[in-house]
Amino acid sequence: MKKQKTKKQKTILFITGNMNKLREAREILTDFNVMNKKIDLPELQGEPVEIVEEKTKVALKLLKKPVIVEDTNLRFNALNGLPGPYIKDFLHKLGMNGLWELLSGKKDKNAYAAALIGYGEPGGKVKVFEGKVLGTIVKPCGDSHFGWDPIFKPKGSKKTFAQMSAEEKNKISHRKKAFIKLKKYLDNK
Amino acid sequence: MKKQKTKKQKTILFITGNMNKLREAREILTDFNVMNKKIDLPELQGEPVEIVEEKTKVALKLLKKPVIVEDTNLRFNALNGLPGPYIKDFLHKLGMNGLWELLSGKKDKNAYAAALIGYGEPGGKVKVFEGKVLGTIVKPCGDSHFGWDPIFKPKGSKKTFAQMSAEEKNKISHRKKAFIKLKKYLDNK
Repeated sequence: MKKQKTKKQKTILFITGNMNKLREAREILTDFNVMNKKIDLPELQGEPVEIVEEKTKVALKLLKKPVIVEDTNLRFNALNGLPGPYIKDFLHKLGMNGLWELLSGKKDKNAYAAALIGYGEPGGKVKVFEGKVLGTIVKPCGDSHFGWDPIFKPKGSKKTFAQMSAEEKNKISHRKKAFIKLKKYLDNK
Repeated sequence: MKKQKTKKQKTILFITGNMNKLREAREILTDFNVMNKKIDLPELQGEPVEIVEEKTKVALKLLKKPVIVEDTNLRFNALNGLPGPYIKDFLHKLGMNGLWELLSGKKDKNAYAAALIGYGEPGGKVKVFEGKVLGTIVKPCGDSHFGWDPIFKPKGSKKTFAQMSAEEKNKISHRKKAFIKLKKYLDNK
């Protein structure tokens, strides 16, 4: 019986304290039992993929079970990808207006939001999946319920992330795109 | 005999591959045998003091001997202390001009350079000492032998760090100030 264990029964620990993110993961990874676990992982400096890889390795070492780690980046073209992985700290120090003003002297207002999802299981190699949404950085507009949503306007949209309903935003979510890539990977394993 | 071991004989490992920094440390910590050790330590995101504290702890755990760890920050007033500990990554991604341009829309060009020195020894608490030099951010001027020296003009000086001789720069060095604080601490232990 044990050998015939189906994917349905496989538990994956998603390192997050955010129930919306957990729900999003569950909606996509329907063949798995996705549970959340809230632990603090070290945030390194460096390249986005390496940061997530490292966090996933630490989580795997700690929990010794299949794990998912997620990290979000906001990359400004004119700043060669910055703030990138430092977006949380930038938002904290500069606020929404300060972030927007970083591009005040720049013609290129393009940016992209990226979700990086790291997946690791005992004995396996850590994989990282990226989901992107292209857009532009605009003067803060809309309520700031979630991070930098008021300054990010996805390409082709007249609204910032902050002006969209949860439903509208989820349709084009960078995190969703990354989760779909992870699903494909797990399905073909 | 062992109990009467003088400070002269105490070896401290300075985690650096930079021989100029080692020389600077030796010139100040004359009562100690300062040796260098080149190892890569994880660079966390966060507050400057915490980053150095963490690096010092890791070095201490690894080497089990008295250690010195050094980190440099460049903090722009108008950006609430950023780039701060991320200065290396910013310099790499934006170059000297890009760094200077971050302040193009800002009236306040004030900044300070900070050297943070972490000291730890087995069984003791890690201590962090900070040396600061106030100054302004200017259009790159002078040869770029060392990091962001061409854009930093210390208060009261007509030259950027890059336009100064090594001797001139050492006189007002933020690192020197931090080492002097460390020396005082070690002398009074």
